Amino acid sequence: MADNKKLVEAITSMEEDFAQWYTDVVKKAELIDYTSVKGCMVFKPAGYAIWELIQSQMDAMFKETGVENVYLPMFIPESLLQKEKDHVEGFAPEVAWVTHGGMNPLQERLCVRPTSETLFCDFYKNEIQSYRDLPKVYNQWCSVVRWEKETRPFLRSREFLWQEGHTAHATAEDAEARTIQMLNVYADFCEQVLAIPVIKGRKTDKEKFAGAEATYTIEALMHDGKALQSGTSHNFGDGFAKAFGIQYTDKDNKLQYVHQTSWGASTRLIGGIIMVHGDDSGLVLPPKIAPTQVMIIPIMQHKEGVLEKAAELKQLLSANFRVKVDDTEKSPGWKFSEQEMRGIPVRVEIGPKDIQANKCILVRRDTREKMEVALDELEGKITEVLEKMQSEMLERARAHRDSHISTAVTMEEFARNVEEKSGFIKAMWCGDQACEDLIKEQTGATSRCMPFEQETISDKCVCCGKPATKMVYWGRAY
Amino acid sequence: MADNKKLVEAITSMEEDFAQWYTDVVKKAELIDYTSVKGCMVFKPAGYAIWELIQSQMDAMFKETGVENVYLPMFIPESLLQKEKDHVEGFAPEVAWVTHGGMNPLQERLCVRPTSETLFCDFYKNEIQSYRDLPKVYNQWCSVVRWEKETRPFLRSREFLWQEGHTAHATAEDAEARTIQMLNVYADFCEQVLAIPVIKGRKTDKEKFAGAEATYTIEALMHDGKALQSGTSHNFGDGFAKAFGIQYTDKDNKLQYVHQTSWGASTRLIGGIIMVHGDDSGLVLPPKIAPTQVMIIPIMQHKEGVLEKAAELKQLLSANFRVKVDDTEKSPGWKFSEQEMRGIPVRVEIGPKDIQANKCILVRRDTREKMEVALDELEGKITEVLEKMQSEMLERARAHRDSHISTAVTMEEFARNVEEKSGFIKAMWCGDQACEDLIKEQTGATSRCMPFEQETISDKCVCCGKPATKMVYWGRAY
Repeated sequence: MADNKKLVEAITSMEEDFAQWYTDVVKKAELIDYTSVKGCMVFKPAGYAIWELIQSQMDAMFKETGVENVYLPMFIPESLLQKEKDHVEGFAPEVAWVTHGGMNPLQERLCVRPTSETLFCDFYKNEIQSYRDLPKVYNQWCSVVRWEKETRPFLRSREFLWQEGHTAHATAEDAEARTIQMLNVYADFCEQVLAIPVIKGRKTDKEKFAGAEATYTIEALMHDGKALQSGTSHNFGDGFAKAFGIQYTDKDNKLQYVHQTSWGASTRLIGGIIMVHGDDSGLVLPPKIAPTQVMIIPIMQHKEGVLEKAAELKQLLSANFRVKVDDTEKSPGWKFSEQEMRGIPVRVEIGPKDIQANKCILVRRDTREKMEVALDELEGKITEVLEKMQSEMLERARAHRDSHISTAVTMEEFARNVEEKSGFIKAMWCGDQACEDLIKEQTGATSRCMPFEQETISDKCVCCGKPATKMVYWGRAY
Repeated sequence: MADNKKLVEAITSMEEDFAQWYTDVVKKAELIDYTSVKGCMVFKPAGYAIWELIQSQMDAMFKETGVENVYLPMFIPESLLQKEKDHVEGFAPEVAWVTHGGMNPLQERLCVRPTSETLFCDFYKNEIQSYRDLPKVYNQWCSVVRWEKETRPFLRSREFLWQEGHTAHATAEDAEARTIQMLNVYADFCEQVLAIPVIKGRKTDKEKFAGAEATYTIEALMHDGKALQSGTSHNFGDGFAKAFGIQYTDKDNKLQYVHQTSWGASTRLIGGIIMVHGDDSGLVLPPKIAPTQVMIIPIMQHKEGVLEKAAELKQLLSANFRVKVDDTEKSPGWKFSEQEMRGIPVRVEIGPKDIQANKCILVRRDTREKMEVALDELEGKITEVLEKMQSEMLERARAHRDSHISTAVTMEEFARNVEEKSGFIKAMWCGDQACEDLIKEQTGATSRCMPFEQETISDKCVCCGKPATKMVYWGRAY
């Protein structure tokens, strides 16, 4: 167990320093690495494989709702970015500018897309002529650039990977329905695939997307009690359509503006997985998103027949699971520790005595439960354990989240909850941005969302005491 | 049939003007669109879906050989790009430069990656310490930028999508073996999936990749007799390792430089599919790469039960094929024409009389063969037709290619063949770049590759008459 300890000791405990624990896990689980390009990261195989599983499963959910994938250029001419006033104000301060192509200065600067509303508008302007061309429900998987000053792996970097959906509809109702539909896809994806429960709601005007009429969000709670905005869906109304002149002729042959939406989720979700499920031994991956679901670790592998049996089990299990054998020269203890650090859901230990008894030891990553399993029952048992782990991880995350939701009717109570209880604070709000600003200034908490499921905690704004219009989830956030 | 003709007449015939035919197909099959970003394209759903099928199938072939996917930044600091002398000379003239982040000028310019050798080297320098860390066999799917002056959809654009594999090995032999292995993966992919036969060989020094010791290529022949370089694999030896200081300690505890490779294939392949298989009715897609493999077209769809039957067939066939029903208000003739333009391999026509007789009409896109098929035999018949079409498309392309290979022993013969026969010309070469330059100047043909399968056509260089060292495939190329 000596070398087992060595790897584990290398990471800081969550209680001691959560931020350092996070950085340690990201590094030791080999998810990401820093580069000599300031603020940009390398996604290493273990990190990128999680993104591939997010992509394939989320993309399948998109396509079930009629989404089609496209790819638009990564550059936006400055004049195009400037067409929608709020949008350019929101993004221009944080974009990277291309000024030279080859040896020559460009006639017009191009920004590297921070998001692609303007490009989709420019595209839709030509694509859409008649009501028959609607709706357009397009999405792209790509990387975007925002020139952030402070960066953190997965949570904030100058370049990140995401998907951005952009749709155009005949009516305001259709656009609103699609905005909510995609928010629900994100919520379902987070709960069913990532085992992360989320609160659905609407952003306040202060927090909404630059150029949107309404921004909806899903908010998750991390282990340290801070919130993570995990996906957003925006209804633009006809604002962009008017700025870009995107019109169609309706059935009565009248010219109408389209109504648009956009929605995005990013590699940030991987940060969420780490911070919701991880523990002091490292990463814990929900089975559905684990690039390796089962790690077979041979015990006394130099003994005759052990590696052969491990390979045979791998072969058998590969039909239904993502399986690997760790047949490196490291000690079993070291291998256990690595499998735990990487968050691989199930470990199968098999040695000479097990083989003789036609059994093996199965260990579940999250609970560390050890089971002795007959080899001919292994496949069924793994299915059962993975399913149980997936659903229990969600329930555990939900219990943690729910135990970190408090209410506040006074600012004193609010401030105390932020400090002592952390998590989400439910409190009433008058609708005035001045109160939002003051709450942030005094407590560091921001409005996370006005949840769809409204409650009445009091009839007064927690900040100014004027009549409340909304119950809001507040919290410190990533 | 009137409106059927209208769509078809809109495209130029191949014989009349191949370049215009190509542009027409790309546009009418809705694969790509131009944008207000000069030299950059939009991949529309029908075009991007082909790329998704290329990605998923090629990626599976990569992973079978042990490739792992990663993602590196899109920016390269100028100082990093300059570390390998030949490489920077090859690429610096055609990169886009980012000079500002947000409101501030950058301390060092960043180029948008035209290819990522330098970034992988910078990454590997830290990742690789010991022989135990080797080999590294990483790949990324991303977009790259090259500031081209002349652009054409899929074939040449300022931004394009591709994959780039970058590997590091302990020995020169391992690197060479991986270089050839990946070239073979490309060749198998082109033949088995895209139904495009290719010639495998090595590039001359003039044509090799900037910084490579050896570049291997697969060369395909388009319908108009011009060649298309369809994938390349480079052996860098230890040149980049020395420039970047990538060393490992071997088993004897000695410091050694790694040996590296890289290999890439791009959305250019889609241009190849169009120009190898297309005809005067539009695109013809090999079944394995067709986003929609079967289009069901209801006849007299207003009659009771027709649309229901079409939906039922779709439901049935969806288990094994990518199927759609065209239930729009267009006429059947128009729908046939669109299905042909889009290259959908199989069309199923079903109307009231067919339903009564429990049959349908099946039409194969490439040969236009019409078959009457009993509905309960439809699934099996489609499987058979798609398999046959896939293999016959390859054989037809191979026959076309082979009938466009000629030999030349004199420059006169060479020049005449380029003009009259087009296609590949096999001719001997002394190995001197002056002869390559002269051949290009006089005929417009470039050396495509020195094929692995060498033949002796004469003992003298076709250009200078000195002793020949290699048989070379020459041709005009995209």
